[in-house]
Amino acid sequence: MSATSSHAQKKTAPDSARRSERSRRAIYDAALALVGEIGYPRTTIEGIAARAGVGKQTIYRWWGSKAQVLMEAFIDLNERNQRAAAEHHPGVPLNPVALPDTGDLEADLKIVLRATVDELLDPRFDVPARALAAEGVANREFAREFVAALLMPGLDLYAARLRAAQDAGQVRADVDPLIARDLFSGPLAQRWLQETGPLDHAYADRLVEYALYGISARPRQQP
Amino acid sequence: MSATSSHAQKKTAPDSARRSERSRRAIYDAALALVGEIGYPRTTIEGIAARAGVGKQTIYRWWGSKAQVLMEAFIDLNERNQRAAAEHHPGVPLNPVALPDTGDLEADLKIVLRATVDELLDPRFDVPARALAAEGVANREFAREFVAALLMPGLDLYAARLRAAQDAGQVRADVDPLIARDLFSGPLAQRWLQETGPLDHAYADRLVEYALYGISARPRQQP
Repeated sequence: MSATSSHAQKKTAPDSARRSERSRRAIYDAALALVGEIGYPRTTIEGIAARAGVGKQTIYRWWGSKAQVLMEAFIDLNERNQRAAAEHHPGVPLNPVALPDTGDLEADLKIVLRATVDELLDPRFDVPARALAAEGVANREFAREFVAALLMPGLDLYAARLRAAQDAGQVRADVDPLIARDLFSGPLAQRWLQETGPLDHAYADRLVEYALYGISARPRQQP
Repeated sequence: MSATSSHAQKKTAPDSARRSERSRRAIYDAALALVGEIGYPRTTIEGIAARAGVGKQTIYRWWGSKAQVLMEAFIDLNERNQRAAAEHHPGVPLNPVALPDTGDLEADLKIVLRATVDELLDPRFDVPARALAAEGVANREFAREFVAALLMPGLDLYAARLRAAQDAGQVRADVDPLIARDLFSGPLAQRWLQETGPLDHAYADRLVEYALYGISARPRQQP
C-alpha cells in the first residue's frame, strides 16, 4: 500500500498551476484532520473549507466530492511519508516505483508486508484509508477511481517483483503473477478491513512463507 | 460465504415467538427488493415498512437499524438458498456445518471456492452482501456484528477443514489454520469487493493450487 502514489497523483490531480499551493495544502490538512477527529460520515466539503480558511467554491472548483478531496489528500500524505522515510532511513526500501529486489524473494516480500502492516496500523493512514475503502465498497463509481489510484499501483509492483523472480528461476514459470500477488494483498486487506485476526509482523511473515512454499505436506500431483 | 448462517441466526434473531412469521418474511423480502432496486443508501426503514405493509414501529421494535434488517434478511436468504440447493442437488456439499471432506483437500477446496465465486457473482447475493460489507467497513460497531454473523462462521469452517487435513497428514503440522485460511478468503474478498481482476472458477482453482503447493520454484530453506 505504501508504494502506490506517483502515477495516481499525475492522473487525478487537477492542473496544479491553477491553484495556490498554500490553499491545496490547507485543504488536504483540513480534510485529514476532520476525518481523524469527527469521522468520514460527518466530514463535509463545508467543514473542510471552513477549517482550511478557503471558500467552499474553491474546493468545488478542483474536486467533485469529499471522497475525491480525501483521496488526493491521502495520496499526498503517502508521498510525503515516503520522502520522509527515504531521508531518515536511506536503506529502507520504500521506493514507490519498485519493490526491493535483493535476489532473496522471501526476505524482500517480508520487508514489504511488514512495512504495509506498520502503515495499516498507523492511525494517520488507517483512518483516511478506511474511509476511502468504505466509500469504494459502497459507491461503484468512486470504487473505480479509488482502486485505480490507490490499490492497483501497489498490486502492479507485486506482479512486477514476482515476474522478476520468475525470470530468476525463483518462482515457477506456470504461476500467474496477477493471481499470485493476491495471496499477499488479499489477506492483509481482509484482516485490516474486517479485523478477522491479529495484524502484525508474525502474520506478514507466515503469509509470505505459506504463499511461497505452500501449506501442503505433499508435493503437487502432476496431471 | 455460503455456509455461515445457522449460528448467526440463532444469535442475532430477536425472539421469533414475539413476531408474526408473515410480517418477518414480508420485511425481509421488502428489504432485499428495495436494496436491489434503489440501492442501499436510498433504502430506509420507512420504505421497507411501506413495501412490507407493516408499520415502521413494527420494524423498530425488532431491529435497531436498516443494516440489521438487511443482515437478517441476508442470513435468511442464505439459509433458504442452502435448503433449496440441498433439495435439488443432494450431492452438492452446501452443508452449513462443515466443508466437504472427501479426503482430497485440493478437490474439496476447489468445490468450496467455486461455489463461493458463483454466489459472489449472483446479483441476489452480491447486492445485499456488498451493501453489508460497505456498512461494515464504514461503521466499526456494525462491523463487529457483521463479521461475527456473516464472515467468521465461514472462516471457522476453513480452519476446521485445514485442521482435519493436518490430522490426516495432508497439511504441514507447523501451519496455523487461522492464518492459512486467509489465503483463500482474502483474495476472493478482495477481487469481489474491489474488482482487482476476474473472479471465476479458474481463479478459484489457481488460488487453491498456489496456497497448497506454493509459488516458489525452490523448496523452503530449513532454518
